[in-house]
Amino acid sequence: MEKKKNISMAVIKRLPKYHRYLGELLRNDVDRISSKELSEKIGFTASQIRQDLNCFGDFGQQGYGYNVRELHAQISSILGLNKDYNTIIIGAGNIGQAIANYRFDRFGFNIIGIFDANPKLVGIKIRDIEIQDIDRVPEYLKNNIVDIGVICVPKNNAQKVCDKLVQGGVKGIWNFAPIDLDAPEDITIENVHLSESVLTLIYLLNEKDQ
Amino acid sequence: MEKKKNISMAVIKRLPKYHRYLGELLRNDVDRISSKELSEKIGFTASQIRQDLNCFGDFGQQGYGYNVRELHAQISSILGLNKDYNTIIIGAGNIGQAIANYRFDRFGFNIIGIFDANPKLVGIKIRDIEIQDIDRVPEYLKNNIVDIGVICVPKNNAQKVCDKLVQGGVKGIWNFAPIDLDAPEDITIENVHLSESVLTLIYLLNEKDQ
Repeated sequence: MEKKKNISMAVIKRLPKYHRYLGELLRNDVDRISSKELSEKIGFTASQIRQDLNCFGDFGQQGYGYNVRELHAQISSILGLNKDYNTIIIGAGNIGQAIANYRFDRFGFNIIGIFDANPKLVGIKIRDIEIQDIDRVPEYLKNNIVDIGVICVPKNNAQKVCDKLVQGGVKGIWNFAPIDLDAPEDITIENVHLSESVLTLIYLLNEKDQ
Repeated sequence: MEKKKNISMAVIKRLPKYHRYLGELLRNDVDRISSKELSEKIGFTASQIRQDLNCFGDFGQQGYGYNVRELHAQISSILGLNKDYNTIIIGAGNIGQAIANYRFDRFGFNIIGIFDANPKLVGIKIRDIEIQDIDRVPEYLKNNIVDIGVICVPKNNAQKVCDKLVQGGVKGIWNFAPIDLDAPEDITIENVHLSESVLTLIYLLNEKDQ
């Protein structure tokens, strides 16, 4: 895996998809797959697939295809799925609850705390985790190592929550609020901007309609 | 807007962001903005911005910057926000409820029906819309014009739901299930794959950590 440096964002964005398809192949007891077969499943061209996987090292064997189990394990390791990520969710509305209920734990995404500003939600349990008052976040971060903070609060509070997470040593932020957060360079922010997604859908729908 | 054809997906994906920032400028009573100032706010380079907006026609005036109201209106129109999109949500779990509760109506995203397979949810109202039995979707589509279907059901049912939507004449699908759906070419599918998003976050977090 010495080739790991300077991988383009486009390749990185495709890795989770490889991971998902290879996982399905594994569950269906497929041992080997060629880039051509993988291409038919995943929708990228075979040459794209060979090029992508080549960024990370020599996975395939010419004429024999890829060993599914090995490739899946290597992509898991490249993605960093061989360890746990302590995660807290800030905002226990619909999105926050959806995240808490998702089966992300298989990625090592380990939810250890949920916080909300609404006193009606504080004390309620989601999957055995009691929702705490949002004001307790700084104190919680002093006493616990947290890798990822999921921001599911309304837009107007998102930057304030982000600042608290950063001050508390959180390095990864999964942001569902419809704003672009300011944070120091060493912080990783991944946005899920639903408004932008629906606008893209509407645009493309009109394009095809013409 | 004669230049509209053959716009790259990368540009299209940036349009909603322009729309969001210009909307904020409008609300703050900003009349004009240069590509340089816009660049500082939005994080794309000024030349990128000029190039992007140029794809759609002549918006700017050299040395005077962009007229914010005009540019916002034109991007709204390019995005197709000048009309309504009748939308139904299939699956009223956390994600479905989050979508139903979001303020997407300002985009003309008009939710007219919500469906679920769980009898405990059927009959409950979300924002005045009563959740109906999922088996009633085909009949509903016979009697109503629906532009967009939002798929929020578990992975195993998502393709079946997609097929029913397509059979019922729905042209746009916003898919939250973690699979890639099969649909005819004239159907527009926009995916929100949360697993892929969290895997990207985990990967980037590890990259920075090294």
